[in-house]
Amino acid sequence: MTAAGLPMTVPDPQLPPRVRIHEVGARDGLQNEQSVVPTEVKAEFIHRLADAGLTTVEATSFVHPKWVPQLADAERLFPLLGDLQDVRLPVLVPNERGLERALALGAHRVAVFASATESFAKANLNRTVDEALAMFDPVVTRAREQRMHVRGYLSMCFGDPWEGPVPVEQVVHVCRALLDMGCDELSLGDTIGVATPGHVAALLTALNEAEVPTDRIGVHFHDTYGQALANTLAALRHGVTTVDASAGGLGGCPYAKSATGNLATEDLVWMLHGLGIDTGVDLGRLCATSAWMAGHLGRPSPSRTVRALTHQEQ
Amino acid sequence: MTAAGLPMTVPDPQLPPRVRIHEVGARDGLQNEQSVVPTEVKAEFIHRLADAGLTTVEATSFVHPKWVPQLADAERLFPLLGDLQDVRLPVLVPNERGLERALALGAHRVAVFASATESFAKANLNRTVDEALAMFDPVVTRAREQRMHVRGYLSMCFGDPWEGPVPVEQVVHVCRALLDMGCDELSLGDTIGVATPGHVAALLTALNEAEVPTDRIGVHFHDTYGQALANTLAALRHGVTTVDASAGGLGGCPYAKSATGNLATEDLVWMLHGLGIDTGVDLGRLCATSAWMAGHLGRPSPSRTVRALTHQEQ
Repeated sequence: MTAAGLPMTVPDPQLPPRVRIHEVGARDGLQNEQSVVPTEVKAEFIHRLADAGLTTVEATSFVHPKWVPQLADAERLFPLLGDLQDVRLPVLVPNERGLERALALGAHRVAVFASATESFAKANLNRTVDEALAMFDPVVTRAREQRMHVRGYLSMCFGDPWEGPVPVEQVVHVCRALLDMGCDELSLGDTIGVATPGHVAALLTALNEAEVPTDRIGVHFHDTYGQALANTLAALRHGVTTVDASAGGLGGCPYAKSATGNLATEDLVWMLHGLGIDTGVDLGRLCATSAWMAGHLGRPSPSRTVRALTHQEQ
Repeated sequence: MTAAGLPMTVPDPQLPPRVRIHEVGARDGLQNEQSVVPTEVKAEFIHRLADAGLTTVEATSFVHPKWVPQLADAERLFPLLGDLQDVRLPVLVPNERGLERALALGAHRVAVFASATESFAKANLNRTVDEALAMFDPVVTRAREQRMHVRGYLSMCFGDPWEGPVPVEQVVHVCRALLDMGCDELSLGDTIGVATPGHVAALLTALNEAEVPTDRIGVHFHDTYGQALANTLAALRHGVTTVDASAGGLGGCPYAKSATGNLATEDLVWMLHGLGIDTGVDLGRLCATSAWMAGHLGRPSPSRTVRALTHQEQ
């Protein structure tokens, strides 16, 4: 379908020259799959993502296996990635027990998972927002003592299925708490995909006013309503240079087999390369990797770019 | 899934307060369907689109029935729309014969379909770009004599499957020719969906420099690589207020049953309403209409918003 030289590169001087993609497919994607992917396939997936040029690949999660059986093999998987010395391999840790497991395996980077809303904190962590922050405090302190890099995920930054729109000030408050606790980086999650570009701009402006440095902010958009890439463009325009995405758009909602959750890395890369923004990613290799993983999962990739470039059938 | 009040409305003062959606699902969408939709279903579809608040609904095409059998019923369909006095119902006319058929039925608005590239002009019209323009010249002249409004579609404005990237100057040249011929409005088509936001900005800047008034420019993006909404945002930022879209994302590529071609009207409306941009569209009614049409076509809508709001299974 596509002739050589596409997308045509036309830079926008108002946008950053380089973006770091925080690849979440192996963790956020696979933890939402109904089937459990074999450990060796996960290891090959992560190696292939690194080969495609991704420099930050979230590898797994040290949650209790009962909660997320899809990632119960973290102890077996992580040692299989030992040769990837030049790739950042953050892992999710829900609590001190998870952190100790990650430390025992030599992980250098961890992430905690907070909520901007009371309803989701209750549903996901069975705690209030403040109780969840109190739970993470010793985790972040201990990780920092061990010279680990700590990322703080923040869910429901734009809307919440129970509460509706989420006030910007509420999100800024939890962001400040995570940074004050010692998080190096934040990831602003639009967990239900409802954000639009003006809302993104408003939150980033409020964070600037609260003196949160833009280089410590990542964005994590979901494509539930098709808005993820337009929202990413709005974030780039505000100077954000860390963007979360999932290879092949892994992480679909369970009620629609091929409806996407996470922004597909390939669709993001297409836009960034068209804008002349360096990512270090080889789009052809990345699409081939996502098509290969789609074969393992037995369903097509929801990424439009993967479908178009690999002529993947529904 | 979605609580009341979403998307949250956060206007961007740099964007226009109102956008006119040029709905193409009934023509551009259905002409690409393998099955022929019954005339009565088409008429109901167009009535439901009007009920949902769409004010411009491209109704059908007066091409030779051999070329597009899906729309061979134009003569039977158009009279069934006689009650829609407040809705603009443009029809596609490929040549003088088509225009006479449209005139005989009392159509007030027509559209012609030109190409920005020689390869597509050859493939689609079996003519050079200039020969195609010469073919349209008497059509546009006669339509204007009859006080019809004339839209000029321009295909392959950003990339071409044979030629690769399309130079901006080449597109500007054909745009000027269509306006000089008498077209009231242009629709800049990214027929293969390869454009990115910087490229969109560059073309619109070049058209401004060539003194093409922005209020005579519409944009027509395809979502082949997931870029349509980000590109639309870039066009709005340049003052464009006419956006083509297809209800439910109708108009998929034949090789991937649910891969979308046209930007889905619902995904567009979600973004515009979140940005506080008035469209006049009732999103719930529109989604219900697209879900109903998806039922007739026997496959799910590729619109992410339709899937999310109607809980449509794959």
